[in-house]
Amino acid sequence: MNDYSTRLHTAMQAKRTAALVGLDPRESSLPAEFARILQDHPGDRFERRARAYEEFSRRIIDVVAPFVAAVKPQIAFFEDCGPAGMLAVRNVMQHARDAGLIVIADAKRGDIGTTAEAYASAWLAGSDPSAAPYPADSLTVSPYLGSDTLTPFVDAAIQRGAGLYVLVRTSNPGSGSFQGLVANDRAVCDHVAAEVERLNQSTRGNGSYGSVGAVVGATHPLELRRLRQVMPTTPLLVPGYGAQGGTAADIRPAFDGQGLGVLVNSSRNVIFAHLRPPYSEVAESRGWEAAVEAAARDFASEFPVPAA
Amino acid sequence: MNDYSTRLHTAMQAKRTAALVGLDPRESSLPAEFARILQDHPGDRFERRARAYEEFSRRIIDVVAPFVAAVKPQIAFFEDCGPAGMLAVRNVMQHARDAGLIVIADAKRGDIGTTAEAYASAWLAGSDPSAAPYPADSLTVSPYLGSDTLTPFVDAAIQRGAGLYVLVRTSNPGSGSFQGLVANDRAVCDHVAAEVERLNQSTRGNGSYGSVGAVVGATHPLELRRLRQVMPTTPLLVPGYGAQGGTAADIRPAFDGQGLGVLVNSSRNVIFAHLRPPYSEVAESRGWEAAVEAAARDFASEFPVPAA
Repeated sequence: MNDYSTRLHTAMQAKRTAALVGLDPRESSLPAEFARILQDHPGDRFERRARAYEEFSRRIIDVVAPFVAAVKPQIAFFEDCGPAGMLAVRNVMQHARDAGLIVIADAKRGDIGTTAEAYASAWLAGSDPSAAPYPADSLTVSPYLGSDTLTPFVDAAIQRGAGLYVLVRTSNPGSGSFQGLVANDRAVCDHVAAEVERLNQSTRGNGSYGSVGAVVGATHPLELRRLRQVMPTTPLLVPGYGAQGGTAADIRPAFDGQGLGVLVNSSRNVIFAHLRPPYSEVAESRGWEAAVEAAARDFASEFPVPAA
Repeated sequence: MNDYSTRLHTAMQAKRTAALVGLDPRESSLPAEFARILQDHPGDRFERRARAYEEFSRRIIDVVAPFVAAVKPQIAFFEDCGPAGMLAVRNVMQHARDAGLIVIADAKRGDIGTTAEAYASAWLAGSDPSAAPYPADSLTVSPYLGSDTLTPFVDAAIQRGAGLYVLVRTSNPGSGSFQGLVANDRAVCDHVAAEVERLNQSTRGNGSYGSVGAVVGATHPLELRRLRQVMPTTPLLVPGYGAQGGTAADIRPAFDGQGLGVLVNSSRNVIFAHLRPPYSEVAESRGWEAAVEAAARDFASEFPVPAA
């Protein structure tokens, strides 16, 4: 019960959705009321931005918590606020856990040996939020350095009841430049996928899924189908839905018969719903949080999960 | 004069060495006097560790600054101290810049689009330390997500007079698992290298080198020679010397006729010199900083650069 995939799937069944909201705050897209914090809050420009991102993210969490199982803070935007941003994202992550949400730190970390251990120790709190300085349930990691550099993350995930999502096939237009190179009749991303499935097996226990997941973009639907076959017991995190062009139909083949095994991410289409129709009209009449609520509710209903 | 490779090579000629000291603090290897900070400093265990790492790193910088041109803080170890660790590493980086050193943030960041822009904005201060929340001259980045994800880093590097080191062939034993896969008669790392050289050309100006560098481990001497040929104008950052098994003879072919174009990293063999002969004897008689000084001096003399 304390392993990551059990906690994740229990949460998805409780909320009845595979929807995941990405917390990607950007100064230029924040609702108008945040101009006050950005201009008047004490501190330098980095500290003011950190304060605005924390407040915005907390309020997003309060609005979306009834509708989704998980949130994914994008660490880069907080890192660009300096040390104050890291305090902000830690507080945001704790707030999300207090709201009963699964927290995926999207940091795409990766390094060798004891350095990988340090990253794992920093981010993988897992079942006990106080086990790490940043209270994430799971972490995105990059595989380029090699399979031996993933092992310290897997070991830490097992020890702490945490999860991983290894980058396999990313959603950006140029993701094929190295991931798509073909070696021994298989794309590089397929080699990575096979290794992820192998590592995942060591974390499976009695469950259908293990705790070593994979990132596969919705923008490559054929690859998504193929890679799901290479990784049948691996939880998937699927970015690229909506704003980047992936559709619900592109993603459906990756789910299992219970509607599980996949989390679908949407970031700006939910958190900045006030900027686009039809939600911009909701924002005009009832405020930006009402727009976020409507967008989160619609997004969640796109990817229904039957109750347990 | 404000571009990264000019600043770097000027500093190497001034110090007459290609040696680079990695700042990889680890609680279990700190000199005995730091036990006091780790036990008694105010704050939680993460804040105490951050304080110890900052103090240790500052004193390392004070000792090695006369002998080397650059230092490379390993961000993972500071990240594992939570937000206090990020404040510590910012202070350490500023202290190094105040000491006239080139600062390479070893963070191995990488992401897509505007997220990559945020990482670049966070770390690439370049010629003006106040331009970013973390005052690094250059940053290590991971290429797995694709060539289009390197472009925002290159654009920021050009704009800020900063540098990059893209992971090409890393020093760990398992680095071949994906980097060594052969596609179209070339290893994946050679494909990455060709792309790095191409991106680097756009930053070259009139200099021999550009500001987009590459990480190639000393533990793969044949690859190092071959990759230098693929990347003739790319500054190299070479880890794996010493503790990991690479020798000075393995690295020499990567240098140009002026002894430039390569920085060689050593971390624990210098900063934890008090733990190994012959420097442990120096530490016993004259203290740990004398051991670091002796190790740094010896290391610097292994990779001499003629004066300009």
